[in-house]
Amino acid sequence: MKCCESKIIPRYADTDQMGIVHHAAYLPWFETGRDDFFKKMGYSYYQLEHNGHLMPVLNISCQYLKSAKYDEPVLLRSTLEKFKGARLSFRYELIREADLKLLSVAKIEYSITNRAYQPINIKKTNQELWEKLNNCFN
Amino acid sequence: MKCCESKIIPRYADTDQMGIVHHAAYLPWFETGRDDFFKKMGYSYYQLEHNGHLMPVLNISCQYLKSAKYDEPVLLRSTLEKFKGARLSFRYELIREADLKLLSVAKIEYSITNRAYQPINIKKTNQELWEKLNNCFN
Amino acid sequence: MKCCESKIIPRYADTDQMGIVHHAAYLPWFETGRDDFFKKMGYSYYQLEHNGHLMPVLNISCQYLKSAKYDEPVLLRSTLEKFKGARLSFRYELIREADLKLLSVAKIEYSITNRAYQPINIKKTNQELWEKLNNCFN
Amino acid sequence: MKCCESKIIPRYADTDQMGIVHHAAYLPWFETGRDDFFKKMGYSYYQLEHNGHLMPVLNISCQYLKSAKYDEPVLLRSTLEKFKGARLSFRYELIREADLKLLSVAKIEYSITNRAYQPINIKKTNQELWEKLNNCFN
Repeated sequence: MKCCESKIIPRYADTDQMGIVHHAAYLPWFETGRDDFFKKMGYSYYQLEHNGHLMPVLNISCQYLKSAKYDEPVLLRSTLEKFKGARLSFRYELIREADLKLLSVAKIEYSITNRAYQPINIKKTNQELWEKLNNCFN
Repeated sequence: MKCCESKIIPRYADTDQMGIVHHAAYLPWFETGRDDFFKKMGYSYYQLEHNGHLMPVLNISCQYLKSAKYDEPVLLRSTLEKFKGARLSFRYELIREADLKLLSVAKIEYSITNRAYQPINIKKTNQELWEKLNNCFN
Repeated sequence: MKCCESKIIPRYADTDQMGIVHHAAYLPWFETGRDDFFKKMGYSYYQLEHNGHLMPVLNISCQYLKSAKYDEPVLLRSTLEKFKGARLSFRYELIREADLKLLSVAKIEYSITNRAYQPINIKKTNQELWEKLNNCFN
Repeated sequence: MKCCESKIIPRYADTDQMGIVHHAAYLPWFETGRDDFFKKMGYSYYQLEHNGHLMPVLNISCQYLKSAKYDEPVLLRSTLEKFKGARLSFRYELIREADLKLLSVAKIEYSITNRAYQPINIKKTNQELWEKLNNCFN
């Protein structure tokens, strides 16, 4: 289980006056992809935060290849690419459902921190989460 | 001091494919108007939250008379209309700077609560804020 | 067919530092409810715009009764309440799935216009849409 | 004139339940930085679109070094780094006003297109804009 698929229907509020989905609207989609991945893995982000962790974004790179449009369904493939120490990287692919064209590819790196935003080694503090994340690479 | 004026320049991300500012984008503007009002009054919302209060929205009514457009500056007039117990009401008027046409009128009611979202009577718990809010009506 | 139900999972990006969904985030949800209603009715908003119409918001009233929270699913019930001339009103009810508590009630009035934002009488210009909207009241 | 400075006050709606500005909220800020740059250069983005051009985003890379917080003013430095053919790159630096700490660095590449989203060589179609952009490197 390294990949998870989510379906997204671009909302009217996501568009801008260029007639396409505004580039900033992709980021909450990717976040939803991450959340769906964690749920499928058996440890939700909700639970992660409930247990005192946070996962702030460290860096983003995103290519916009073709435009997403209002009400044209897209598939989001979220893949956990790396996990080491207090850092995770996801790769996101956004695909137009109608013709399976690739619209966007992104990579987002997150830090796992405590509530004071300090990176934590979950191997020591959260064995369950650590194992589930590691199992994604088997 | 019952009225406070803020200047807003609609951002590209605020627009939708209809070519106008999306109706949801007005709400963060009104919130900014409230914040400017509180700062001018001498007790910022930042300080209010720092002191253990929250101000969730209870209800909103908003009329959209004319469309706001990208990069066309608007003036926002924020007026404290009512303050009683744990409730405040603001009236917001959005005016196009170029021709002073009224674009939108809104009324938003807020509750003053503690961190558990329970309404609090600030007359007892925060005399300074209570006085400053009351002085707005003199 | 006067009511349509949509399921929404509040996203992380919808929250604010109060720990609840920001009040502005409800408006794109309601818009999604309207879109789901139109699709179920057999004439999508996408199609409506494609045929040269727009549906700008005229006014909104919204009560916030209980807070929506991150990742706690909500049901949105969208009801067409009125349709006359170039105006439509929807009523929206937002219900927490877990305990069926009512979180929010809203009423939004829209205008049906041409691309120049002028109200149009669709009885004359778009018989198909006019009939489908009227059939919602039978 | 290769650099332009904008002042931004993070809004309450920009925050998330982590207590910091959500990472997606930076993108509309950068867009505002680009707009301020163009205005200072003497050819606004408004004008650019009015003259039949669009400037969709091609790719983004953004590092989040420290968190922006509600109501803590930030300075945004926008620099035109490259301009060639139908492509422009901006570099954005986000600096906390209080202590001049660098919060974020981003690079965004844009395409200059016609209304059909096709890249255009503005050297041929818009001499005025072409010269103004080139003068930024002198």
